[in-house]
Amino acid sequence: MMDEFCLIDHFFKKQALSRDEVVYGIGDDAACVNVPSNQQLLITTDTLVAGVHFLADWDPYDIAYKAVMVNVSDIAAMAAKPCWASLALSLPKMDSAWLKGFSQGLHEALQKYAIALIGGDTTRGPLTITLTMHGLAPSGKALRRNGAKLGDKIFVSGELGAAAMAVSWLPSHEKELSKDEQQTLSRKLKHPFARVDLSDILQQYAQAAIDISDGLSADLYHICDASGVGACLSLTALPIHSLVAKYQSENALSFVLGGGDDYELCFTVSPKREKDFLLALAKANLTCYPIGEIESKKGLRMMTGQGRIVSLPPQGYRHF
Amino acid sequence: MMDEFCLIDHFFKKQALSRDEVVYGIGDDAACVNVPSNQQLLITTDTLVAGVHFLADWDPYDIAYKAVMVNVSDIAAMAAKPCWASLALSLPKMDSAWLKGFSQGLHEALQKYAIALIGGDTTRGPLTITLTMHGLAPSGKALRRNGAKLGDKIFVSGELGAAAMAVSWLPSHEKELSKDEQQTLSRKLKHPFARVDLSDILQQYAQAAIDISDGLSADLYHICDASGVGACLSLTALPIHSLVAKYQSENALSFVLGGGDDYELCFTVSPKREKDFLLALAKANLTCYPIGEIESKKGLRMMTGQGRIVSLPPQGYRHF
Repeated sequence: MMDEFCLIDHFFKKQALSRDEVVYGIGDDAACVNVPSNQQLLITTDTLVAGVHFLADWDPYDIAYKAVMVNVSDIAAMAAKPCWASLALSLPKMDSAWLKGFSQGLHEALQKYAIALIGGDTTRGPLTITLTMHGLAPSGKALRRNGAKLGDKIFVSGELGAAAMAVSWLPSHEKELSKDEQQTLSRKLKHPFARVDLSDILQQYAQAAIDISDGLSADLYHICDASGVGACLSLTALPIHSLVAKYQSENALSFVLGGGDDYELCFTVSPKREKDFLLALAKANLTCYPIGEIESKKGLRMMTGQGRIVSLPPQGYRHF
Repeated sequence: MMDEFCLIDHFFKKQALSRDEVVYGIGDDAACVNVPSNQQLLITTDTLVAGVHFLADWDPYDIAYKAVMVNVSDIAAMAAKPCWASLALSLPKMDSAWLKGFSQGLHEALQKYAIALIGGDTTRGPLTITLTMHGLAPSGKALRRNGAKLGDKIFVSGELGAAAMAVSWLPSHEKELSKDEQQTLSRKLKHPFARVDLSDILQQYAQAAIDISDGLSADLYHICDASGVGACLSLTALPIHSLVAKYQSENALSFVLGGGDDYELCFTVSPKREKDFLLALAKANLTCYPIGEIESKKGLRMMTGQGRIVSLPPQGYRHF
């Protein structure tokens, strides 16, 4: 039977990508890295627990893939670029088939963003994955939540609601969808794409940013709270995922505002820089959606299609 | 009821130590740090799982304390100084009393080493603690496992065996010990002291190092394996903890060689530098124990009191 050390060697060390800054990675008591001068290091940790963040019978490839993406998304929200990750994996038992799939998903997701796996810990225990992700940004250029200013335009980086619909609606309605549609929804949940493609543009043009992992209203509320401002969204401007609009238009608002798990970004841009921002986006072939404006009055509000302003409680995923 | 965000604020953010290099810590999608020029960053992750690494009924103070120490010990083994940590905590339910004790142990242990808590993740799930610890060392000065050379003297940084005796023997023999002795053993297990006090001296004099968390013979085997050498220990030189010698002399060897959990360091020093090393130790009021020598013949051996050489299988804690 393979012990912990062979396991690490076989499934993790051999396939780890190398990067110039990594002096040495897996195999010692700690990894050693050089942080380039004029760069700041961003560090985030996210845990996925079986039965809470995913079902234990998920394909291990998908579990690993998602674990990478939720962490990369936090780095993307800082307008930084991911660089190194360490993995803490608790497993009920040594299961080579499971580990093979898991390590494949892990390495493919890491390679997508040129991230080096630099270390970790494998332990016996209930299935839990904790990744600690490191990112780099030019000094002073990382984006925080607390920079939103009165008058800023609020943007989201993509269509929302599909992941939430995949969690709560898809399992009991699979037959109503085409195979393609099923796959699209399922990929939104299991293979989200963390938006590091926006990092350079956000560094230049955005004032504040957050990733929408707990739901748009909860996460926008964090921006407002940290920045000491409020926000008003426009109902008709919210980018609803086409499959949500097609199958669940009656629940669309709840999926979009409260659903979470979309791993798109929400950020604000000063009105003075909006034009240049949109030009830069177009030049990079990227699309973001303006959804409202930062106001001085605290709290979240929404303008309905009829021009009424309604108050919006911060909803979203609660961990306890 | 307190939600995740209040919980983080109350138990973790408010008490976090600040350090100059930490631009911002808890409260954003990621923490942001500056790595001083001419320093390299060391990164390690260790997980403690309830029922595997500790019992769920341990005092939460002790659980947190130990989680810090096992990680600091990995940084100490690199001859580096710990600086920042992030915490991933999975908890079956929100339990304020438990969290109060846990955060107290966490902050007290972190403060002992001036470590800033820069972020983390709290999730609902089986009780599991993963810490990712960061350390700094002058560029090129961090110690690895692979630097042991033929003729090097092998040292350990303290008496061994007490933690293993506390795990396997103490619970059924508490009455045989005085209160003081019980506490001494229990502290060895639950409040180990990670040996960062040796970092400066090891940077100067040692060739290879590892922390003895899996047991002396298993961990020394890692040094030999990584360095392409072997080792011969001297039985009579092994520093056996006085309580092990007093109560469990018949099992002392197994506790010392295979027990693990001592969190002392094992390292090698070139014979040319041994004298200066011992002088530096004495000047710093520190004691380390010479236990053997690096040899060209692979594998581990031990010289008995009668001068016989016996082969020593690498024992130690196996995670699966």
